[in-house]
Amino acid sequence: MCVQHWRRHLEKLHADCHALGIVCPEPAVLLSDIAQIASKAPDCVVKIIVTRGTGLRGYAPPAQRSSTRVIMASALPDMTSRDTGVNVHLCALRLGYQPALAGIKHLNRLENVIARAEWNDAEIGEGLLCDQDGNAVSGTMSNLFVVEGATLLTPDLTRCGVAGITRQRVLDIAQCHAVPTSIEHISLQRVYNATEVFLVNSVIGVWPIMRLVHQTWVPGAVTEKVKQWLEEDDAAAV
Amino acid sequence: MCVQHWRRHLEKLHADCHALGIVCPEPAVLLSDIAQIASKAPDCVVKIIVTRGTGLRGYAPPAQRSSTRVIMASALPDMTSRDTGVNVHLCALRLGYQPALAGIKHLNRLENVIARAEWNDAEIGEGLLCDQDGNAVSGTMSNLFVVEGATLLTPDLTRCGVAGITRQRVLDIAQCHAVPTSIEHISLQRVYNATEVFLVNSVIGVWPIMRLVHQTWVPGAVTEKVKQWLEEDDAAAV
Repeated sequence: MCVQHWRRHLEKLHADCHALGIVCPEPAVLLSDIAQIASKAPDCVVKIIVTRGTGLRGYAPPAQRSSTRVIMASALPDMTSRDTGVNVHLCALRLGYQPALAGIKHLNRLENVIARAEWNDAEIGEGLLCDQDGNAVSGTMSNLFVVEGATLLTPDLTRCGVAGITRQRVLDIAQCHAVPTSIEHISLQRVYNATEVFLVNSVIGVWPIMRLVHQTWVPGAVTEKVKQWLEEDDAAAV
Repeated sequence: MCVQHWRRHLEKLHADCHALGIVCPEPAVLLSDIAQIASKAPDCVVKIIVTRGTGLRGYAPPAQRSSTRVIMASALPDMTSRDTGVNVHLCALRLGYQPALAGIKHLNRLENVIARAEWNDAEIGEGLLCDQDGNAVSGTMSNLFVVEGATLLTPDLTRCGVAGITRQRVLDIAQCHAVPTSIEHISLQRVYNATEVFLVNSVIGVWPIMRLVHQTWVPGAVTEKVKQWLEEDDAAAV
């Protein structure tokens, strides 16, 4: 059984559980759950949810700290837009600021649900979320990268957004290949002006943006290189 | 069967479902659910949860819009601190700003869960939440009122917080009795300096703050009057 980038997913799960005061299940327990799923669905997306467990009415955590885990299998999504690029909606909803939770992959994603309900057009694959000040933050289910000159930039996620593992893999891999990277607040105008723009997540990998409102791009050289490096890294991890 | 302030609860549920794009169940359906609970637990707290229903993995709303409702009964809480006043913890967690969701009584309350986990002392009945700028916003499960001179103030909830129905009842009832009210941003220092401070929610009613960090209060005249007016209104509503 090969769980792609298991170590990174596990570290993220562990760190985020810790930040939220949730007991993280043991790796062996999770791997055993996944093995059970893999025996029935050998090639699928696995989603792991860890909850704080059950308690009484009210916000107080249960006296006995124990978590509940939900391990779900889903079919791999249709990935034709991975090559052609994705048509992206600019979301009207703007992400709120909560530094205490920013970066964490938690389940309080009402903002994303509201934003995702803004479009119902099968031609649109993702929505771009901006923050209260109009900086681009991420897709509703993906992290954002833009190319400015020779530099690969990704938004600062200390006020909102989810710091996904593929975002970190891209940053690490770029560094390995001496591509300068920068994490900063990126205005929407800078996104429009960027020479290349792509999204990433664990399921899709690199997802070039083809169109955002009236701006269009074709997948560029940096995007292609990052994609190739990630695929080489995937192959090495197997 | 008497469901206290049913009309207000229903209006709040309806408005908040609408704001979130969730189908609100018909009043008759909810009343029938509550009647079923009341036949077994005549005197209890009823909690109504309406969800967006079931869907596939991802943030997209289900194609068929239909909601799921959960109606729960809980025992009435111990209310001795309603008379003596409540000892309040000042939460370290500060509420984030999300104007698109502020005021709505939704279930994305990870902030409240994190804040409530800050204390584990049975002597402390509630926690006071401030916003990113250090203004007092609310309790973790209650709205806040402070008395300054002859005016009854409650925090502005356009950036964060839940606009509960008892908060609105207090504002309405104060107006009926010619007590000047004001909704504004209220710094923590103004709370400390206030002559009277109390919390409200649907289950507890009026809950005077006895202590907040090093500041102490005894239930004052305005608090007592508001409490009496609410109880008169409760009696009239039966």
